[in-house]
Amino acid sequence: MVEEKLKAVIRDIPDFPEPGIVFKDITPLLQHPELVDLAVKEFVKRLSGIEFDLIAGIESRGFLFGFLLAQELKKPFIPIRKQGKLPYKTVSESYKLEYGQATIEMHEDAFPAGSKVLLHDDLLATGGTVVAASKLIEKVGGEVAGFSFVISLDFLQSQGRLTRFSEKIISLVGYQ
Amino acid sequence: MVEEKLKAVIRDIPDFPEPGIVFKDITPLLQHPELVDLAVKEFVKRLSGIEFDLIAGIESRGFLFGFLLAQELKKPFIPIRKQGKLPYKTVSESYKLEYGQATIEMHEDAFPAGSKVLLHDDLLATGGTVVAASKLIEKVGGEVAGFSFVISLDFLQSQGRLTRFSEKIISLVGYQ
Repeated sequence: MVEEKLKAVIRDIPDFPEPGIVFKDITPLLQHPELVDLAVKEFVKRLSGIEFDLIAGIESRGFLFGFLLAQELKKPFIPIRKQGKLPYKTVSESYKLEYGQATIEMHEDAFPAGSKVLLHDDLLATGGTVVAASKLIEKVGGEVAGFSFVISLDFLQSQGRLTRFSEKIISLVGYQ
Repeated sequence: MVEEKLKAVIRDIPDFPEPGIVFKDITPLLQHPELVDLAVKEFVKRLSGIEFDLIAGIESRGFLFGFLLAQELKKPFIPIRKQGKLPYKTVSESYKLEYGQATIEMHEDAFPAGSKVLLHDDLLATGGTVVAASKLIEKVGGEVAGFSFVISLDFLQSQGRLTRFSEKIISLVGYQ
């Protein structure tokens, strides 16, 4: 029900960012505060079985619902950013892209060791960034308590890459 | 009062992103939901005299409080992003950096012509990005109804660059 309502405003953009890829565009969703609110409430409901201390969001679309959700649940929010963007001392993790590689970073004082972290991004595709972000959380002594995504591209079958960090994977909208 | 409380958690990072610059780091603020809430309430109070239809936030730190504020006020949120990130048809605007230039984009169907837009970013420094974002809003037929920033570096005296778009400039924390 929530999924159908959200799907109705998520826009397919063919051949972005490259030919053959159909991009799921959440920008129309952001224009509907009542649907954003519905999404947040659904996240809160489905997160009720997961214990966590804070939410980490991946730059930059993971900042949107990640921070909103953190504020709704009165939890600290931790930004995970692209290389060179965070000003204080960082830990970093590189991962492979189709061509070349990318590096993401987190402040080394982002949270106390032993913290349980909910990792949020807007979309789960191949999972490369999310795996790298999970490693960052473990590098700083944290534990991945679960994952939340607005969208998961289930046909890419990436959830299996995440279960070594946590089996609690929540996604509001799935595409088979 | 609010300003002092926020200042107490904003961290100075010397020589970032380059020697001689003192960077204002808001990441510690994001770890305090009660202070984030205080900031949002202060924004709402100070925005009460400004009429606007939607909030545009500049990637990526402008996504944080921009989206939170949009949701608090039940307004649509529009992301303004770096070149090549938005998947649908865009308008774009380039501006000079100290070395080279940068380009930002907005979806051309982001809002109906005649919309009044509150433009949000986390920090006003020289104002280059904010001026370019204001031009984008006007390109699509919108009107800049006002500006909101968490921080303004008032010693750079950039507010004068913005007044041709709107004289309503709100900043929670100023540095003289």
